[in-house]
Amino acid sequence: MAKQPRRSWIAAANKEDCDFPIQNLPFGVFSTADSAPRCGVAIGDMIVDLAECEARGLLDAKGSFARPHLNDFIALGRPAWDRIRERLTELLAEDGNQDTPLVAMADATLHLPIRVTEFTDFYASKNHAFNVGVLFRGPENALPAQWTHMPIGYNGRASSVVVSGTDIRRPMGQVKGDDGPVWTACKRLDLELELGAIVGADSNLGERVSVEQAEQMIFGYVLLNDWSARDIQAWEYQPLGPFQSKALGTTISPWVVTQAALEPFRSAGAERVNPLLPYLQEERPGFYDMTVGWTMNGQRMGHTNYNVMYFSSAQQLAHHTGSGCPMRVGDLLGSGTISGPEINETGALLEMTQGGKNPVTVNGESRTFIQDGDEIGLYGYAQGSGYRIGFGPCTGTVLPASE
Amino acid sequence: MAKQPRRSWIAAANKEDCDFPIQNLPFGVFSTADSAPRCGVAIGDMIVDLAECEARGLLDAKGSFARPHLNDFIALGRPAWDRIRERLTELLAEDGNQDTPLVAMADATLHLPIRVTEFTDFYASKNHAFNVGVLFRGPENALPAQWTHMPIGYNGRASSVVVSGTDIRRPMGQVKGDDGPVWTACKRLDLELELGAIVGADSNLGERVSVEQAEQMIFGYVLLNDWSARDIQAWEYQPLGPFQSKALGTTISPWVVTQAALEPFRSAGAERVNPLLPYLQEERPGFYDMTVGWTMNGQRMGHTNYNVMYFSSAQQLAHHTGSGCPMRVGDLLGSGTISGPEINETGALLEMTQGGKNPVTVNGESRTFIQDGDEIGLYGYAQGSGYRIGFGPCTGTVLPASE
Repeated sequence: MAKQPRRSWIAAANKEDCDFPIQNLPFGVFSTADSAPRCGVAIGDMIVDLAECEARGLLDAKGSFARPHLNDFIALGRPAWDRIRERLTELLAEDGNQDTPLVAMADATLHLPIRVTEFTDFYASKNHAFNVGVLFRGPENALPAQWTHMPIGYNGRASSVVVSGTDIRRPMGQVKGDDGPVWTACKRLDLELELGAIVGADSNLGERVSVEQAEQMIFGYVLLNDWSARDIQAWEYQPLGPFQSKALGTTISPWVVTQAALEPFRSAGAERVNPLLPYLQEERPGFYDMTVGWTMNGQRMGHTNYNVMYFSSAQQLAHHTGSGCPMRVGDLLGSGTISGPEINETGALLEMTQGGKNPVTVNGESRTFIQDGDEIGLYGYAQGSGYRIGFGPCTGTVLPASE
Repeated sequence: MAKQPRRSWIAAANKEDCDFPIQNLPFGVFSTADSAPRCGVAIGDMIVDLAECEARGLLDAKGSFARPHLNDFIALGRPAWDRIRERLTELLAEDGNQDTPLVAMADATLHLPIRVTEFTDFYASKNHAFNVGVLFRGPENALPAQWTHMPIGYNGRASSVVVSGTDIRRPMGQVKGDDGPVWTACKRLDLELELGAIVGADSNLGERVSVEQAEQMIFGYVLLNDWSARDIQAWEYQPLGPFQSKALGTTISPWVVTQAALEPFRSAGAERVNPLLPYLQEERPGFYDMTVGWTMNGQRMGHTNYNVMYFSSAQQLAHHTGSGCPMRVGDLLGSGTISGPEINETGALLEMTQGGKNPVTVNGESRTFIQDGDEIGLYGYAQGSGYRIGFGPCTGTVLPASE
């Protein structure tokens, strides 16, 4: 790509605290009062109408932008991703094309950016795995024996992935009671601060991909809140893993930040405890130096960096194909809860309140877990010099259970 | 529906040991040298070409039969399922329409009958859960505390579901070694004899369905072999459940036997150890009196009845929506391994050989787990008076690992 311009003719994109400068160009899906859902790119306070761009001959993506999801565009492959990014950079640069069709973000409704094919959730923060392990199994059995050797993951539920702004209904569920199980509204509703990687290429049954190949298969990233019902989880999760405790909703950000935009922020992750088996070794650091955190009712709560993680998305994807499992465009891989070592760096209330024992104060109110009406927001950005690559909001408000 | 005729003008359908009599009419997807994949119904040794039937005005399914999967037909809903079944029964009865377009099964290639939306696997044979629990965790912790109270399930991988006849590659994977984990070809490759239920209606985020509603949402059933890499499973499965050990391939039968065809065989399941919570109680028995079993290289191995199960597909589906998880047309729910109480009634080699300790003899050869080149077949049929409702073959042959 040609030299990266630093400024756009769209003024809001040039503000230092704007999530969507010209260096970012994240993809999403939007609609307006006048137009059906279609693909767009965020720039400043505007959205580039990609379908309209193509209709006017400003770029070529084989009609894939006129769809209500990014999957068809993503399926065109990495050369198309790079070509479109380069073309948009030209159109939006200070000396670009001011006739590029735009929609004000304030006038748009944002939709789920991808049709989620399948959803896999990992568990790649050592701090989180240890902290939660202590609460579920005690300190001696906290970190599973295989944890430092493989990215532990489980299949989640794609149908319950929703876009930021979707209300989340407190779930009912079966939990352990004093005299046998009871059916109840969840009493220990939690969030999980995660990054989601979006798979951008298919692999075949019986085919394994290397970490290097896996990295090339990743289109981009979203913020991801893996809402969790801890009381339901504790009763159901052994021996086959979390199930209904994780199926009440998973919120993702509407904007997919591309790997290309994050490339300048490449970073090493957590220090390795032991060498990895060759199929998981990576030749260059696979993490990003990226601030991530979460808010409750607007108050900043946990705040950390994605580079505390132990396994990268590329390592997770390579491991995912280890048995020959086919991957498909639109698969979503959750990083696992991102928690730093300190209590104010944790990405879940379960950790922050130590299993509900130590309440936190939120706008003067005490909380152990999430109450009805609470709004949880995630944020994330990689800080450049005079600009930042952000994701925009990723929020959800909890509704009372429907008993 | 009018009185069920007992004979068809297609002679092979009237044989007592034919899996596909006029009482069955299972749906699938087939192609021939001259035609692209489309929907069909098995009858005797023939397939009714449903797309051609519709083209000739013999039935009406809104064009859904001209597709390479059953999903669009299934999405039409139960009234359409019943109407088409009634119409096919008329066309194929002894006094039916001998111009109904047919293809010889011998000339057809059978395809995956549904586009699998998501795949969930349960664990509903108490015998199996106990037997495997002993091997993984010892007799005291064998049956998890919640087992008799809820259908334990986990999300599987839809992308690795394949149709009968697809070769299965022995997976590579990470397993526990004497000096830390090693990367190796699976040494304990196993089958799991299951029934798969196909969800035929959508539910919404935050919506729960009752057991009665769930039963109405099930379109039909397939045989399902959940190939399992036991050594990979043992190392990876705690605390988040099986992952790569179950993603090497899941084989289903090409024919979907409808709930309507199985209705005369409705049966109670295993005796309850304790009362269920109200959301899992069912007003009438939710199981079927149906012989199921598996073969290895043609030799009969485990042989039991589906009615040994503890939780029905309808109970599993109701539980699946417990937290408000949305279900979608084409979701596949594995019953869990079907094992009777005796060793020759078990649905997995892990149980039959007691974790590989007691080899079995197959055509004069000793086996603990599956060797390269072995073919595993499943069978299943409900025995009526003078006819049976069968699934046809569900087979797969194991190829050597690609190291």
